[in-house]
Amino acid sequence: MSSAGPDWQARLAAIQAELVNLGVDAVVISTLHNVLYLCGFGGSAALLVITRSGVRLITDGRYAFAVRQQAAAGAMASVDLQQVGKRYDLTLGEAITELRLSRVAFEPAHVTVATLRSWERAAPGVSWTPADNLVENARVIKDAYEIAVFRRGGALIAKVIEALPALVRPGRTERAIATEIERALTEVGFSRPAFETIVASGPNSALPHARPTDRSIGPGDLVLLDFGGVLDGYCVDVTRMSAVGPLSDRAIGLFEAVKVATEAAISAVRPGILASDVDRAARDLLTSRGLGEAFMHSTGHGLGLDVHEAPRVGRADPEARELMQPGMVFTIEPGAYIEGLGGVRLEDDVLVTTMGSEVLTPASRDLLFV
Amino acid sequence: MSSAGPDWQARLAAIQAELVNLGVDAVVISTLHNVLYLCGFGGSAALLVITRSGVRLITDGRYAFAVRQQAAAGAMASVDLQQVGKRYDLTLGEAITELRLSRVAFEPAHVTVATLRSWERAAPGVSWTPADNLVENARVIKDAYEIAVFRRGGALIAKVIEALPALVRPGRTERAIATEIERALTEVGFSRPAFETIVASGPNSALPHARPTDRSIGPGDLVLLDFGGVLDGYCVDVTRMSAVGPLSDRAIGLFEAVKVATEAAISAVRPGILASDVDRAARDLLTSRGLGEAFMHSTGHGLGLDVHEAPRVGRADPEARELMQPGMVFTIEPGAYIEGLGGVRLEDDVLVTTMGSEVLTPASRDLLFV
Repeated sequence: MSSAGPDWQARLAAIQAELVNLGVDAVVISTLHNVLYLCGFGGSAALLVITRSGVRLITDGRYAFAVRQQAAAGAMASVDLQQVGKRYDLTLGEAITELRLSRVAFEPAHVTVATLRSWERAAPGVSWTPADNLVENARVIKDAYEIAVFRRGGALIAKVIEALPALVRPGRTERAIATEIERALTEVGFSRPAFETIVASGPNSALPHARPTDRSIGPGDLVLLDFGGVLDGYCVDVTRMSAVGPLSDRAIGLFEAVKVATEAAISAVRPGILASDVDRAARDLLTSRGLGEAFMHSTGHGLGLDVHEAPRVGRADPEARELMQPGMVFTIEPGAYIEGLGGVRLEDDVLVTTMGSEVLTPASRDLLFV
Repeated sequence: MSSAGPDWQARLAAIQAELVNLGVDAVVISTLHNVLYLCGFGGSAALLVITRSGVRLITDGRYAFAVRQQAAAGAMASVDLQQVGKRYDLTLGEAITELRLSRVAFEPAHVTVATLRSWERAAPGVSWTPADNLVENARVIKDAYEIAVFRRGGALIAKVIEALPALVRPGRTERAIATEIERALTEVGFSRPAFETIVASGPNSALPHARPTDRSIGPGDLVLLDFGGVLDGYCVDVTRMSAVGPLSDRAIGLFEAVKVATEAAISAVRPGILASDVDRAARDLLTSRGLGEAFMHSTGHGLGLDVHEAPRVGRADPEARELMQPGMVFTIEPGAYIEGLGGVRLEDDVLVTTMGSEVLTPASRDLLFV
């Protein structure tokens, strides 16, 4: 392992320790980002069989050469490679027989009903145990390698935010601005956009998940810009607001309220409190300004290999009392949307530290008049 | 319904007819592209409940306004809209109770084990029937609207292919060329790339699913360019080969073999033959030139709202004897990959017609020396 890379061995050992608690011989990991997290395999098809004493990667001919290359370069965990003959389910069945596994866990949130049926046929006599969030629970606490990637990603996205005044010009369409932003993301060093960039202007900004249209931005428009990039597999995600003056007092008030709500939520972040307390900090602020109804989504979501992952930063849920812990990374993105007037959202990425929090996306969140 | 748009009513009626065959009261469609296909909803979360006499779309607050907008513009099927209160599973349970459904089909290839468990809890007493490929079987035969979109998409991608000589320049990195190609895709009119563009040069071209690297292209390189765009939701997907001379005779022989294999497979396409016969046309040609082992993937895959869908155009499979039918659209993409030397793939999109086939991507597939 290169000292700069992920500590695969520690990640795999944490899962192997859980096998004992689950009372199973092995777990089949099929979620691709979980496979990537545990062993570094980045292809589009694989199964990772983790037993108490070993790790086997099942993949097909398209990736066998790439895996050998990656392993030779030290960019992957040490795994036994098993190549798929005809079908993944049949090869998995062979591996289970060969490894003499009888109690096997699987990922119920990823394995479909059809896939589980095919595994049951391929490995008769095996008892299958659903193991909820086995890898996700590990992924929620970022390790030193991941935090370093997020800090680099935050510095890169700050460059894109600083470039916005050159990209958001009156007369340009939402679609053209989105294309410019995505170009800027790859130019500063992201490998790709983390999701389809949202540029929503005027009345369109009242749609929290608007897609860019051919509408040109013009006087009086609020312009919502929600974009992100992928760096070394990890997703960075921010939202900034721009505007073409003159803006109504009501629109300016909307912006100010969301800005203060964002600051309140960020200030609330520290280890040991509930995620819902962070949500409440933003929600109470907006409610006090008559915008409670206008804020119809959660305050934030975890970031990592997925652009939406745990923790959820939303209203209190008796079934999910999630405590903030050092190493969690998530967005803080309060918003307020009013049909006819428009919408405002501001979004930053935050790391929970032992002392409180660190804003990973260090760039002004002021309203940008263009 | 606008005469230029999809015939939602016909698509929904075909599914309703199947409910009788399945012996169920309704089906819950959860695959987002199937929801989009059946009713035009393009958001990121919804359940579509199709009963024998009605259609209900369940979605959350983020999309309710967008659905009303789309419906008013005639860009969606006529559906009853039900807004999610707290959780999708609970709202689905309420809908099932209200509609008095007792036998409900679901999509086993999409519904996870965890999701089915939550539906069972939310709607006690309901019997759940897996309905394999219910919507996919309809989607495999493209209707007049879809064929028109594919023809427009083919004309657009031909423009990008014609622009390649300006984009693929010696000294440029694979990553820079990929960025240029993706920019060209949106410039000609695609809404976004259909997948991450592959630019693989020299030894990297021997990896069928290579990702662009910082390698600069130079003398003696084969350069594989695999890219596509999304037009009105439909995916177009092509591969072309470029090269920086001087090229070895062996590399030129590899290209010529793949080109002839591509032509052979396209010529084989007509209604009534097996998909595997099309695969065999390409495979026999490559095998006769000693390249059977070097062609380790299938000849093609269906295209539509998904970039990979039915039909699979691969080796004969006794469990899936898929017959070519008019209206099918798929890729023809034979390839040959030799570690050390490099790889070649050529890819076009083909429509099965009543008479034979139509190549939807009408652009030269000659080796492009730059």
